[in-house]
Amino acid sequence: MTSSAHDPAPIRRLDGWGFVGHQTDVPRRMLEWLDARLERGPSQPRLPLDGLAAALDADSFPTPRPLPDLGPATLSTDLLDRLRHARGQALPDLVRLRHALAEPKVIGPLPDAVARPRDDAEVEALLAAAAASRVRVVPWGGGTSVTGGAQPPPGDTPTVTLDLEHLAGLEALDEESGLATFGAGTFGPALESALTARGFELGHYPQSFELSTLGGWIAAQSSGQESLGRGRIADLVAGLEVMTPRGRLHLPTLPSSAGGPDLRRLLVGSEGRFGVITRATVRVRRRIAAPDAKALRVEAVLLRDWQGGVEAARRLLEARVPLDLLRLSDEPETAVALSIGLAKSRLGPLAKAWLRLRGVGGAACLLLLGVRARPDDDSALHVDATFEAARRILRPSRPVWLGAGPGRTWVRDRFHHPYLRDALLDVGLCTETIETAAPWSRLSTVYHEVGNALRGALGARDVPVLCHLSHPYADGASLYFTFFFPCAATPRETIERWATLKRRAADAIAAVGAATSHHHGVGSWHTAWLEREIGPLGIRSLDAVAQGLDPDKVLNPHVLLDPTDRLVD
Amino acid sequence: MTSSAHDPAPIRRLDGWGFVGHQTDVPRRMLEWLDARLERGPSQPRLPLDGLAAALDADSFPTPRPLPDLGPATLSTDLLDRLRHARGQALPDLVRLRHALAEPKVIGPLPDAVARPRDDAEVEALLAAAAASRVRVVPWGGGTSVTGGAQPPPGDTPTVTLDLEHLAGLEALDEESGLATFGAGTFGPALESALTARGFELGHYPQSFELSTLGGWIAAQSSGQESLGRGRIADLVAGLEVMTPRGRLHLPTLPSSAGGPDLRRLLVGSEGRFGVITRATVRVRRRIAAPDAKALRVEAVLLRDWQGGVEAARRLLEARVPLDLLRLSDEPETAVALSIGLAKSRLGPLAKAWLRLRGVGGAACLLLLGVRARPDDDSALHVDATFEAARRILRPSRPVWLGAGPGRTWVRDRFHHPYLRDALLDVGLCTETIETAAPWSRLSTVYHEVGNALRGALGARDVPVLCHLSHPYADGASLYFTFFFPCAATPRETIERWATLKRRAADAIAAVGAATSHHHGVGSWHTAWLEREIGPLGIRSLDAVAQGLDPDKVLNPHVLLDPTDRLVD
Repeated sequence: MTSSAHDPAPIRRLDGWGFVGHQTDVPRRMLEWLDARLERGPSQPRLPLDGLAAALDADSFPTPRPLPDLGPATLSTDLLDRLRHARGQALPDLVRLRHALAEPKVIGPLPDAVARPRDDAEVEALLAAAAASRVRVVPWGGGTSVTGGAQPPPGDTPTVTLDLEHLAGLEALDEESGLATFGAGTFGPALESALTARGFELGHYPQSFELSTLGGWIAAQSSGQESLGRGRIADLVAGLEVMTPRGRLHLPTLPSSAGGPDLRRLLVGSEGRFGVITRATVRVRRRIAAPDAKALRVEAVLLRDWQGGVEAARRLLEARVPLDLLRLSDEPETAVALSIGLAKSRLGPLAKAWLRLRGVGGAACLLLLGVRARPDDDSALHVDATFEAARRILRPSRPVWLGAGPGRTWVRDRFHHPYLRDALLDVGLCTETIETAAPWSRLSTVYHEVGNALRGALGARDVPVLCHLSHPYADGASLYFTFFFPCAATPRETIERWATLKRRAADAIAAVGAATSHHHGVGSWHTAWLEREIGPLGIRSLDAVAQGLDPDKVLNPHVLLDPTDRLVD
Repeated sequence: MTSSAHDPAPIRRLDGWGFVGHQTDVPRRMLEWLDARLERGPSQPRLPLDGLAAALDADSFPTPRPLPDLGPATLSTDLLDRLRHARGQALPDLVRLRHALAEPKVIGPLPDAVARPRDDAEVEALLAAAAASRVRVVPWGGGTSVTGGAQPPPGDTPTVTLDLEHLAGLEALDEESGLATFGAGTFGPALESALTARGFELGHYPQSFELSTLGGWIAAQSSGQESLGRGRIADLVAGLEVMTPRGRLHLPTLPSSAGGPDLRRLLVGSEGRFGVITRATVRVRRRIAAPDAKALRVEAVLLRDWQGGVEAARRLLEARVPLDLLRLSDEPETAVALSIGLAKSRLGPLAKAWLRLRGVGGAACLLLLGVRARPDDDSALHVDATFEAARRILRPSRPVWLGAGPGRTWVRDRFHHPYLRDALLDVGLCTETIETAAPWSRLSTVYHEVGNALRGALGARDVPVLCHLSHPYADGASLYFTFFFPCAATPRETIERWATLKRRAADAIAAVGAATSHHHGVGSWHTAWLEREIGPLGIRSLDAVAQGLDPDKVLNPHVLLDPTDRLVD
């Protein structure tokens, strides 16, 4: 991978993850692993980086429908701009966008315009005008939804996508209370660098960190890789400013309140259905003056097998070892990780020797444990003591400690794994993920049922499945499944395959009573399964709030609460 | 105080806190402190313990209105039973109940019947029948509301109070996940003793612990004294079963979910307005086999003054010292505590000598720090290390450590302080509390504004005010004000005085943007100030949910969302 993420003005790719100039090849051994299990399909085309606007067949895309006066926010009807705001970043989104030249129709609905308000008043005016004239509005942060949450609703009603990029930056920092106020359109790197300059950090690192925004994290209920130590985004939100078609909802910055149910928690996860979050005050903390690779120590451990690994993870949580990160790969994911990651590190041979000792292809599971250094602790006593406590708890599991080398690699690359999807599409392979959460006592059932559902979803066709446990809590954890299948002859057929896999996995998750999602959200694709999780009265409760704040269904009417199956829309 | 809380069948007092047989005299020095600042009013009568039913003038109380068939739940229309379910436990409730013999009208509305369902189906049937026939229902746990949340709504519509006492006890324990399911009517001591028998604890200890229920904690959003280590009740709720007039709302037990906004958080703090919580699954943890007095080490520290104490508390939080409890008294509260509590302990002379050194009536502030022993740590290394870390952080504040003696006294008495209110009423003095929360940077303003509002509320009459900081968070803390005033000639006048004080304090809290309440809730008394906290759109959001689940306004229509000033109702 060439590194240009921190160049002055990185350009987002239209048909893939991240920035132009970044590229990740599929590691040779990973491709070998996949080739041993799958036949490749046709390579998916890429859009040209230069001259795309000229190459597009503008007449094949829907002409922007006329819009009423929506107030002072600037509106763009440029085709490329509309195309950039047409899809999220799940696998089918990438497949569709890659075919934009030859098959424009496969993109699906485009917004009729992209609005870029400069302040709250412009958002408020636009929503009020949209409500008055039956225009739909799709809020847009970084556009990294993997649940169909960023695409326009289908139908005849004109749609404006509301890009919050100008509502960005640090607005206030209360150093005494550790509270920072940012515009909702602030991207991860800009947010952390504004805080770093003042000696603070938020510490929220979802995998999409470089491409997603604070407002998106809140609206879609994200969880950072260090959620074990830092909590989910919901735990970090202290105050919110939300524009709704009915006016402004100001939720004051308070450490806690018994003033009725916590409305901040009602907005977290509302996915743009209740209002547009324009500003948030988040809990920040003092940080040490060092880059992540130094501030976050991640150690790698090999454990005997998955079941033993899950139990070891549970015991670490039960004993309240103050780790910031825990991630346990199952046997297949460990095999892939060892082949592509650890083999490159100096500890590869040890790991391999250990595996050999246990027999070829042994059922080893890789556990990553991370601890972040504390600012008031120059000699890293906290880090040492925490690893010592973890060692004590893990000892009965007879772990093999691989040290900090693999962890450094993981920290360095932790936001770059999604680029692999693009490289796989280049060689005719699809990969997608689905994730959930459940209490410890049900994780084994969830693991087997979801894995089996995925492996059996395409009939005779093999579907390799990797899984890891992460985001652990005292009472349970998240399971994150990565699966692979070949691209089909046409994008529609590829998307049908993907939809079949998603439906089977989501059905399996619902059948065992696990969470619809742990941190990807509901979007417009998981709505039917949300209803299975919270029941008709749960849906009714959320729908009532939407009705109260947005009676004309201006905001994301297809998201969260409309149970139509839109997987292939 | 004579101890009988753990006798086989303690009997709840009707006109005061706690159990018959308990009694607390006002400590002599506290009375001296008050007499130096206040004139006493008339002693408030007590209801007789024996023969009350015969002594009551039944004709002076409202006759139960006829009720339609409400299904199979047993209904009681016994006058004493109705009287026991007529009021909560705030000061005016006690004053009213004490006058039940001579002035029955002062009690206010009585429920027309008390229902005691035996299972979920009986609750569901009762709510559906009530909705169909316009009967109002007031859910009742321990009846300890101090915000008018337990009393029947005024008006002509018949009201049934739904006492959940039979929906109690441990129903399931998932030891692997640390999840326990209880009936919502389970009282604190029963809950902890069921868990203790299995080696677990919930660790939620509100001051009302002995008299309040799990369902009440959740509905009214309570916070335990060890919230610093254990979180608020919202953090402990993993799953809920809720009966609504529209049917059952089942919120599954999950460690976390991105399946839309967290509906569990919408029920926490809903104060019976959205539904009746009948069952909850809570996060429990393994506990050491020792009584609290041994498992929880509380040390006392004297700090120079309030401002320095608040800053020291803030630094303990900023440094993430893993304390379970922190409580800082201001100078007046410290003076009272030293005179009545520490003077009895062996460290009293040291404290007094230190105070003398700093000048008579020095501005010392008492800080209590608590750490709970961990089950996997026989030698209490965690407790020692935590206190050592706290010592290091506090050193620049030049604290005087008083050791564990005063803390032991505090732990022993921590659920008994409310009995003092009754003893004060006996001598013609009223005491009440009001609490809030705010970010660290605004605590000083809140402290002064609320204190001044209370002190100036009764004109020339002096209102002594004590305050402590507790329930600290990284970004702020709760302030808890205790104030005193003389009883007036009539209960109505006493209540008017109390209402004036409440309004002034609540106005001051709202004016500085602090929380309506940190853990007492909204009830039917703080509704107008809730609207100032969350604004008309916040109210609209909650009202929409109420409308969705309870369109006929069966459940607690006067609570949470009706802004009428009901302080003197």
